[in-house]
Amino acid sequence: MQDKAIRIIGIDPGLRNTGWGIIEVLGSRLAYVACGCVRSNEKAALAERLCELHEGLAAVIAGHAPVEAAVEETFVNRDPQSALKLGQARGIALLAPAIAGLPVAEYAANLIKKTVVGSGHAEKTQIAMMVKFLLPNSGAKSADAADALAVAITHAQLRAFRAKAHVAQGQRRGRAI
Amino acid sequence: MQDKAIRIIGIDPGLRNTGWGIIEVLGSRLAYVACGCVRSNEKAALAERLCELHEGLAAVIAGHAPVEAAVEETFVNRDPQSALKLGQARGIALLAPAIAGLPVAEYAANLIKKTVVGSGHAEKTQIAMMVKFLLPNSGAKSADAADALAVAITHAQLRAFRAKAHVAQGQRRGRAI
Repeated sequence: MQDKAIRIIGIDPGLRNTGWGIIEVLGSRLAYVACGCVRSNEKAALAERLCELHEGLAAVIAGHAPVEAAVEETFVNRDPQSALKLGQARGIALLAPAIAGLPVAEYAANLIKKTVVGSGHAEKTQIAMMVKFLLPNSGAKSADAADALAVAITHAQLRAFRAKAHVAQGQRRGRAI
Repeated sequence: MQDKAIRIIGIDPGLRNTGWGIIEVLGSRLAYVACGCVRSNEKAALAERLCELHEGLAAVIAGHAPVEAAVEETFVNRDPQSALKLGQARGIALLAPAIAGLPVAEYAANLIKKTVVGSGHAEKTQIAMMVKFLLPNSGAKSADAADALAVAITHAQLRAFRAKAHVAQGQRRGRAI
């Protein structure tokens, strides 16, 4: 059992808006810390936008000092150009915590929905409602911030699950890294 | 006309191997400075691999102090998952010079081939041969390093072209940013 709260950052990557949410987990108890959204200037060049995302995330990590990170493993069924664009933002979302020395876990979008709502096909509004229920103080103002808190909750749930019983590892769709 | 050589870094992004090449341009004269490849450990987790690429590129930029950067704008016709993977590496390739304060230009692969070899459908071996012809001292040992030098040469050629006459901007497929 844990005797000290673990602070987790969840990240929902996107080039325009990258959501982030920070929670603490102690045993099975979750506590809201902070959440928000790092935005990039749509009129700026790509490299500059990635720089904005990186600096925004680095500031959040430095300010809130999480010790573990979790990033949504977005399912891409769109065209390769969209996937390339998302990948660029996702690279930044993975890099920022890794550079800060945090272990970074990745969880598939379906697993996050299933863990937080109970169904792999939950709607965005259902996720936001469950996040508000599990973290009453959160009041995430944007869908991206709520999604990021859902990623953090998923990591909190699955790391506790793993600590209790090392079973069903093969069945998990998320990859802890 | 320039009275001081401009040092340029060209980057050919890839998750496994990210090629880099540094040249100097003074007027229409090109000079080879250095080239190489930053590799990531295939057995490591994705976030860790991106961290390796970032740290490798940051070290090259700090060591060679280029003042402008150019990154290959890869054409993706493969499946979305491959594009996402490449995008992640590409995000790092754009971020590293941007964080260092360098302006970052992007050039389509076809434009690079056309600029260096004369044909948008040139083979990799033709690019390597032309790079060796244009930069006799280079002796790039890997295809990725040669490709990265080709990106730098393209930027050197097009920035000179732009300085001489601000024409045909709309016809360029590469986007300077």
